[in-house]
Order: sequence, then structure tokens, then C-alpha cells
Amino acid sequence: MSDLTPPASAVVDLLGMLAYGELVAFDRMAADARLAPDLRRRAVLSEMAGREITNYCRLADRLTELGGDPEQSMRPYVQAVSDYHAQTEPADWLEGLAKAYVGDGIADDFTREVAAVLTGPDRDLILDVLHDSRHADFAADELRAAIAADPKVANRLSMWSRRLVGEGISQALRVAAERPSLAELLAGGGTDFQALLRRLTSAHTARMGAVGLNN
Amino acid sequence: MSDLTPPASAVVDLLGMLAYGELVAFDRMAADARLAPDLRRRAVLSEMAGREITNYCRLADRLTELGGDPEQSMRPYVQAVSDYHAQTEPADWLEGLAKAYVGDGIADDFTREVAAVLTGPDRDLILDVLHDSRHADFAADELRAAIAADPKVANRLSMWSRRLVGEGISQALRVAAERPSLAELLAGGGTDFQALLRRLTSAHTARMGAVGLNN
Repeated sequence: MSDLTPPASAVVDLLGMLAYGELVAFDRMAADARLAPDLRRRAVLSEMAGREITNYCRLADRLTELGGDPEQSMRPYVQAVSDYHAQTEPADWLEGLAKAYVGDGIADDFTREVAAVLTGPDRDLILDVLHDSRHADFAADELRAAIAADPKVANRLSMWSRRLVGEGISQALRVAAERPSLAELLAGGGTDFQALLRRLTSAHTARMGAVGLNN
Repeated sequence: MSDLTPPASAVVDLLGMLAYGELVAFDRMAADARLAPDLRRRAVLSEMAGREITNYCRLADRLTELGGDPEQSMRPYVQAVSDYHAQTEPADWLEGLAKAYVGDGIADDFTREVAAVLTGPDRDLILDVLHDSRHADFAADELRAAIAADPKVANRLSMWSRRLVGEGISQALRVAAERPSLAELLAGGGTDFQALLRRLTSAHTARMGAVGLNN
């Protein structure tokens, strides 16, 4: 953790990215809820989507407090995120869950790393709006049960997850190139990028193994 | 208002219908948010969708308290509601807003009438989860602005609204025929059906006029 206070513009950039992530997570979970095989699962996923919007509101409020405009702060991320989702449209309920499990897992790990270089209320807010583990637990249970019922599913979902990671990395690099403030924020906090990448990769591999998928 | 306590099964039927209505309202608003012309409007509609899910949870909790099963209590309404939405898929942002404005308006009026024959906590819960007026106000503002910008829009949306009402009535009659408990609940509360229909119609006509649509 750094002793330096990061520039407000970098924090606005970061909060804008997280706010847009929440808005998109809401949208995607709401769409996935429609793929649910029954009303119970549909309600569970809809409730989770509702929490993303609560988080979105908290981030948007903080952006406004910092003198940022939520809409303007989110705009730089729209294209990359849209392209990611257009390239990775889930074909069914399980692909949707695997996408949420894999994608949110990596996004949350990364967000936790960024929060560590921040101080005070922004760090607390960000740690607080990270996906609670209920969604990951629900997705993991569903994935494990589906693989137990039909082991061939593991292969299909492992390949699907590799595609998600590949597409995610390519869009993340694009954002990083266009918005250097985030990389500077991390660099200013003394982050070792090689080590960060190793931590993210090893957490991802552990998550895949935990539900019976291979990386 | 009746002095008789309605049978618990009729209340479970009613709460099941309202709970499913909230789940569908969430889903529809989330889908409409995707049609929004900008991020600000998309966020507003997403936030409203989030509130529907909060309401859904309250109704589901009460259903469980009364010994009902939320999933089972909602199931009888799935087909009619799905058919209604399949027949009335909005083609754009304005059709989506008009559908929410017209449909939620009638649904809320009807729900208020039903709440009046209930007593105690169920009546309070139902009145509390009715769509707050923010959504109707937002939709009305957008519709008025669109009609002001292009008066031809009024004609198209008036025709669209008539289609919505026609389709809504045909599905409502189907539900009423299949689930007589709701009609019995109203009859037991001393409701005059002719007068009820007149009240609903006149409130609908006033709502249409308020945004420049004709019935």
C-alpha cells in the first residue's frame, strides 16, 4: 500500500469503470435469469442482479461527490465491455453461470488489488461493493451439479472458460492502452505487474479446479 | 372494505400473482434498459428494475410466512403473463415506456382495489410494493417530450396502447377463468364488478390524456 494519495482523476476513472461494470453485471444477470430452468433459480439470479444495482448507485453517488459525472466516467469503458459481451454470448444457463463465475472471479481479484493501493473511504467502498460470495457459491454449486450429472459438460465449459479469459484479456489490454491512469495508479502504489498477473492466474486456476473445470 | 377475513388460500393466490408480476416487471425493465438511448436513462431504468426485485423478496417472504411456496404460488400465472409479453414485445424505447406506463398504471389501480378488500399486514404490504410514482413520472416525461418533438409519435403510441389493453384484457379473463379465487375474494369483499371496471377505464383514459395519447 502506498503512502501517496492517488490523483482524484485516477480514482474517478477507476470508480467509473467499476460503476459501468455493475450496470453491465446487472444487465447480464437479468438476461441470464431468463435462461433459468425454473422460477426458483430465476428469482435467485434476479435478486443477485438487484444487488448489483444497489452497488451501482453507491458508486455513482461517490463519483458525484468527487465532482465526476457518472455517465461521462463510464463512457470510456462501454465499447470494450460491449465487445467482450458480444463475443461471449452464453448459449444456455450453464454457459451464463460459468461466465459469471469465471469473469466475476477475475474481476473481483483484480479490483481487490486496485483497492489495496487506495486509501480511506474509496478503498472501503470498493471492497464493500465487490460481488458477495453468494453469487459465486450459487454458480459453483450449479456447475458442480451439472458436471456430476453429465461429466461431458466439464469439457465444453472448460473450453468456454478459456475463450472467456482470452477475450477478457484482449479487451482489458485495449482499455489499459486507452486509459493509462489505472496502470499508473497501480504503478504509483508500487505494484509489481508480473507478480500481480501470477496471483490472478493462480487464483483463477484454483477457482476452475474447485468446480471440476480445467484451465 | 369487508369485515370478513378472506381465506388464506385466496391471499396466497393473490400474493403469488403479485410476486410473479414483480419478477416479470424486473425482467422487462431490465430488458427495456438495454433499449435506452444513453447511459443516464439506462441507469435510471436499471435502478427501477432493482426496486421491483426488493418488492419481489418482500412478497416471497410473506408467502413463505403464510405457509405458501413462492415458486408454486407464481406458477399459475406464468403462461398468461408470458403470452401477454410475447404478443406485446416493444420495438423501441418509447414503446417500452408506453407499455410500462399503460400496463403498470392499470395493474396498480387493480391491485389497489384488491388491497381494499384485505385487512392488516397483507393490505399494507401490497399498498407498499405498488410501483412508486417515480417510474410512471419518468415514463410520462419521456413520452410527453417525444410527442412534443414529433407529434406523429402520438398516433403510433396510441394504437400501440390500445393493442396492449386488448391483449391485457384477454389474458386477464383467462387467468380469472382459471383461478376463480381472486374474483371470489373481490366478490366476498362486496365489490361491484361493473363499477370496478368503470373506475379502471376512467383512470386509464385520464392517464392516456395526461401524456397526449388518446384512448
